[in-house]
Amino acid sequence: MNLYKLTEKVFKYSFGKPINTEAVLTKGEKVKEEPLRYFNIDSTEGMSFNYKMTKDQIVWGLGENLRGMNKRGGIYESFCSDDPRHTPDKKSLYSAHNFLVVDGEETFGVFIDYPGKVVFDVGFSEENSLVIAIEEKDVDVYIITGEKPLEIVREFLNIIGESYAPPKWAFGYQQSRWSYPNEEAVREVGDKFIENSIPCDAIYLDIDYMERFKDFTIDETAFPHFKTFTKEMKDKGFRLIPIIDAGVKIEKDYDVYEEGLEKNYFCSDAEGKPFVAAVWPGRCHFPDFLNPQVRTWFGLKYKVLTDLGIEGFWNDMNEPALFYTDRGLKDAINLAKASENRNLDIYSFFKLNDTFNNMTNSLEDYKSFYHNINGEKINHYKVHNLYGYNMTRAAGEGLSLIDSNKRFLLFSRASYIGMHRYGGIWTGDNHSWWEHLLLNIKMMPSLNMCGFLYVGADTGGFGGNVNHELITRWTQFSIFTPLFRNHAAMGTRKQEPYSFEESTINLLRSAIELRYALIPYIYSEYMKSLKNKDMYFKPLSFEYPDDFSKRVENQLLLGDSLMITPVYEENSLGRYVYLPEDMVLWKVKNYQERTYEIVKAGHHYIDVDLNEVPIFIRTDKAFVLGKHSKNVESLNNEELNVIAFVENEATYVCYDDDGATKDYKVGKHEEIIIHIKKFKDDEFTIEIESKGNTKVKTLNFEIINTDGRVHSKTLSIKP
Amino acid sequence: MNLYKLTEKVFKYSFGKPINTEAVLTKGEKVKEEPLRYFNIDSTEGMSFNYKMTKDQIVWGLGENLRGMNKRGGIYESFCSDDPRHTPDKKSLYSAHNFLVVDGEETFGVFIDYPGKVVFDVGFSEENSLVIAIEEKDVDVYIITGEKPLEIVREFLNIIGESYAPPKWAFGYQQSRWSYPNEEAVREVGDKFIENSIPCDAIYLDIDYMERFKDFTIDETAFPHFKTFTKEMKDKGFRLIPIIDAGVKIEKDYDVYEEGLEKNYFCSDAEGKPFVAAVWPGRCHFPDFLNPQVRTWFGLKYKVLTDLGIEGFWNDMNEPALFYTDRGLKDAINLAKASENRNLDIYSFFKLNDTFNNMTNSLEDYKSFYHNINGEKINHYKVHNLYGYNMTRAAGEGLSLIDSNKRFLLFSRASYIGMHRYGGIWTGDNHSWWEHLLLNIKMMPSLNMCGFLYVGADTGGFGGNVNHELITRWTQFSIFTPLFRNHAAMGTRKQEPYSFEESTINLLRSAIELRYALIPYIYSEYMKSLKNKDMYFKPLSFEYPDDFSKRVENQLLLGDSLMITPVYEENSLGRYVYLPEDMVLWKVKNYQERTYEIVKAGHHYIDVDLNEVPIFIRTDKAFVLGKHSKNVESLNNEELNVIAFVENEATYVCYDDDGATKDYKVGKHEEIIIHIKKFKDDEFTIEIESKGNTKVKTLNFEIINTDGRVHSKTLSIKP
Repeated sequence: MNLYKLTEKVFKYSFGKPINTEAVLTKGEKVKEEPLRYFNIDSTEGMSFNYKMTKDQIVWGLGENLRGMNKRGGIYESFCSDDPRHTPDKKSLYSAHNFLVVDGEETFGVFIDYPGKVVFDVGFSEENSLVIAIEEKDVDVYIITGEKPLEIVREFLNIIGESYAPPKWAFGYQQSRWSYPNEEAVREVGDKFIENSIPCDAIYLDIDYMERFKDFTIDETAFPHFKTFTKEMKDKGFRLIPIIDAGVKIEKDYDVYEEGLEKNYFCSDAEGKPFVAAVWPGRCHFPDFLNPQVRTWFGLKYKVLTDLGIEGFWNDMNEPALFYTDRGLKDAINLAKASENRNLDIYSFFKLNDTFNNMTNSLEDYKSFYHNINGEKINHYKVHNLYGYNMTRAAGEGLSLIDSNKRFLLFSRASYIGMHRYGGIWTGDNHSWWEHLLLNIKMMPSLNMCGFLYVGADTGGFGGNVNHELITRWTQFSIFTPLFRNHAAMGTRKQEPYSFEESTINLLRSAIELRYALIPYIYSEYMKSLKNKDMYFKPLSFEYPDDFSKRVENQLLLGDSLMITPVYEENSLGRYVYLPEDMVLWKVKNYQERTYEIVKAGHHYIDVDLNEVPIFIRTDKAFVLGKHSKNVESLNNEELNVIAFVENEATYVCYDDDGATKDYKVGKHEEIIIHIKKFKDDEFTIEIESKGNTKVKTLNFEIINTDGRVHSKTLSIKP
Repeated sequence: MNLYKLTEKVFKYSFGKPINTEAVLTKGEKVKEEPLRYFNIDSTEGMSFNYKMTKDQIVWGLGENLRGMNKRGGIYESFCSDDPRHTPDKKSLYSAHNFLVVDGEETFGVFIDYPGKVVFDVGFSEENSLVIAIEEKDVDVYIITGEKPLEIVREFLNIIGESYAPPKWAFGYQQSRWSYPNEEAVREVGDKFIENSIPCDAIYLDIDYMERFKDFTIDETAFPHFKTFTKEMKDKGFRLIPIIDAGVKIEKDYDVYEEGLEKNYFCSDAEGKPFVAAVWPGRCHFPDFLNPQVRTWFGLKYKVLTDLGIEGFWNDMNEPALFYTDRGLKDAINLAKASENRNLDIYSFFKLNDTFNNMTNSLEDYKSFYHNINGEKINHYKVHNLYGYNMTRAAGEGLSLIDSNKRFLLFSRASYIGMHRYGGIWTGDNHSWWEHLLLNIKMMPSLNMCGFLYVGADTGGFGGNVNHELITRWTQFSIFTPLFRNHAAMGTRKQEPYSFEESTINLLRSAIELRYALIPYIYSEYMKSLKNKDMYFKPLSFEYPDDFSKRVENQLLLGDSLMITPVYEENSLGRYVYLPEDMVLWKVKNYQERTYEIVKAGHHYIDVDLNEVPIFIRTDKAFVLGKHSKNVESLNNEELNVIAFVENEATYVCYDDDGATKDYKVGKHEEIIIHIKKFKDDEFTIEIESKGNTKVKTLNFEIINTDGRVHSKTLSIKP
């Protein structure tokens, strides 16, 4: 074992010969070996790390995962999985985020940097045992110390590198469906948004835009003039976002296939032949994204679409999902033939059925192909969790080569920590279940802990049929998530906002308008989180020290100033909320009408009608609110409202930048620093400091005093 | 259409020639025809009944079903289904309970007495439309009027006949698993309960006790001396409860098969040959339970087991579940063969997979066999929902012939309203999901509304693996359900109380001890509900008129005196509760130590540690509490505690009977009527009226005054 010191608070314990995942950027210096802190190690088979928890310790983290923010009570397997039914008994989703923070009498963070399967038994088998197990003996274990969870998270965010920043337009509302089949259908979607005056920035192209599901091709019959159509839609205010899948169709004369074959860029099977498995295009090969040359090659393929005016992509099927292999299908068919004309006993029948059911994403298939890592042939199973990460890294790196300073929209289904530097993620194929709205809420801070800031779920649910109430409550939550997309599966009820009854359309429109009005705040908080290595969504207890806050899993702190309390239960007239301190409640029906109510610290039931979005303003905090428009580019925020709840003094730093380039990385941005101070019972001083502000000319202040009275004032900013 | 008046408040609208389901016993008199009340009828295809709801109306009912107590927002299909994954998108469970109550500006009840598939769209497709649809034009629609939901429910319970009463021992704790394979295993279960001093009354025998899954047989190698073993276990205090399945194995010389064949007692296929489908025993025939002679024949078969000392049964697989038919298997295998050596496009692959997945419980199979109803050949699909009902009716009728005055334990998986007269139900193959604990809570009052009083869920969850916290919180709820059984599937984590860590065993023991101490109250309330046509579990709003009570779906009124507020969320330190009036909170750690706290009307967060069971006593109500013992028969309740919260006066009627015979039907029972009256600030008068009481000698009163002080007094009862 080798020990490395990365910072005063971060140490890496390196066991055996770990594969370098490049999740962590900080190298650190080798120091004198010491035994692993906090954990006992059992090496009888593979390695397992055991920590004895006290009854009251909380375990945060694990990023994209099931169950609560507090992971206690469950078993989780980091093994990127394409399983579309996210029921509570599932152990894996699409991503592998092996970072967690133990919080209590003893508080620390641990990141298991291991690219294969990792099992986390967080007090499931034994009430007070945390057991982390891997199947080999090569692993980097990072231990992060600190007083408080947030401090530990920020140390972690420091060593894994700055998160991805999408273009500003990607903070607008986005509409998707599997699939809008052709130009006419996509055009109609755009027109409906315009007709119904519902703001929208992007419309998605799911797998059917391609020619026989071939990456970087366009179905010419469905989209005969793709380039002009892309321009037509952009002129109307909508970007088109095509999907890119991991598997490359085996088809003669298909350039990606031919080149990959010729250059030996595909994963290989035991005999060294390109590995074959079927996904959407039928039988496919799989680019070996763990090879940098392959990444460059595949990444530059995105130019086919950027040349047609495309500015954003979603990478899918990159766990990778494998519908079946020839072997699996052959075995199943042979068993079926052998079962013919037999009076099957019932267990043979189940075996037959299971053989067909288990053909998809089978471990046997994952263990049957190989990567080439610096000339070494590595079995896929050992590095499974790096595949989606490196596919999206390929895209990110490729897009930088295509246009080095441009921000593209890019997010992925599968990921590993490290991928957060190249793109965001959506939480995969959820369902139109109220349980999945709650899961969405709980997952957001966990993802932020792992570096993933540009995140969101399929609003309304991908699988199944949504009803008017669920789409409304879900949209009223998603207006706060950086990635705000409504997506639904083939065969499900139409889920675009305009597809519902008039009363519901109106509710969805006003929620989406609120989103656009909040973009000055949302974008400011997003970019500050990114630059300051902070979280955009936090659990209450990351800011409030009281014990009860630690147990609140259905309220979130949003940026520096706000707390949100979404309604996630059917047929309810409101919900219970917990306030760790006095706050101001703004129930938003229409963001242009604002009435405020002071709610005292403690437990409350608040009425929340279906037409209301509750927003809480924390004590001595302020936020900015603009005006909505049809899309992000057309927002006019020369005039901003500054809404503050001031007991003593509140400061807000309003960040902005060009929203289009990477100049923010070299410090090019604008800041307005607003400072409000109470100097008498109901008199306030306001200081405004402009650091390069060019856009905002006027600030309308609404300062809520502790007595509930609102003090209004308008100030203009000199450039 | 013919109109019948059953009571002042119940009318039957009879369309076409409905099949008589015998759900309703009251015949009623024919009266002058009037149009159907409340609903518009659309007869374009089949029949659909449409009612326009107001925004605030609540829809209660539908018995065993998914989602909330308030059914608004969902689509439900009454079509008894064996589907083991109860996710929120499912439309059917195992039973068909077509009764609902619309509650609001306009309040009424409706029962759709139709034995085939009924679809209820309760504001799913259109926010304010309730649409009930059937595929034919023959149906009895019962409309029940009344001021309040409870009044309507009681009218309904009146016309469907008195609910089933199990023997008193069936209110004890019951342990099950699929399967305890042999005598040794069952003996060990019993011994473990004794060793760990955990009370228990029954141990279950799942399918593996049979010889090749043949009903009314016993595997002689696993249970070589079944009769003496049954006696041995009963002497130790445990009854054995075997499972009976619907399908009869096709096996030469198997008497049930041979007799059924000879007497022509099995459902037939289109050609009139006995219908064949495979379930656990492999290929089976299915008794035609809709034929009274078949019921008598099959019902008397239970004597095989009663002669061996068995006193209780659970009827399973009686939707009926059909794993596959020769046709289905042949089609699937042929498709598999046709797919061989083809480069399947992906949709052909899915079709192949689906063909295997959809082989089980296929509509095509349900439409391919027939019943003989009074000589008429009726397709099963038309009467599907009567099958499990009549299997359990066969058992109930048979057991009455075997021992006319004895109460047997009997419950079923599938049911239809009417079956409540013959047995109870358990809620089927749930999972070890917190969501299913909540579902369990919400389902209980809906089942009571439909006549099913002897109900409960598989405590801890049937499928999946439970953890220490879920088994504890779930058990702490199930102690209040009449059927209190812990059951788990093959391959899942051991779920018997003694299988957990010591700390958990202790929590489960004290919860189960509380159950036994509560049996005097639970049994009294159960039997009064049965005799008075009342509900044992009620939603809050069935007793409290305020609007908020209507929205409370996670608290239940238990009998006349108590409110329960189970904790159903993981890692929580307590929960929010709503009190429509002041109540007394008893947090039970150990039922022998009692401290009381007055909680004011309104919303509260209450701490509920994992070792606590919260019980609320309503204002001016009393209940009785005894002492636990190793099982029900050994309970000694000569001395009872009467615990009351008295503002003005409280009356409690404590019912009891022999708990073993049906003499209660001819009025043989005992009552102690307890009346407590406050006549000064802190002085109370107590009146005790004994109606035939022979068992109770002493009553220890704990009267909680509105100031929280407890007044204790002991009184003896003269016989």
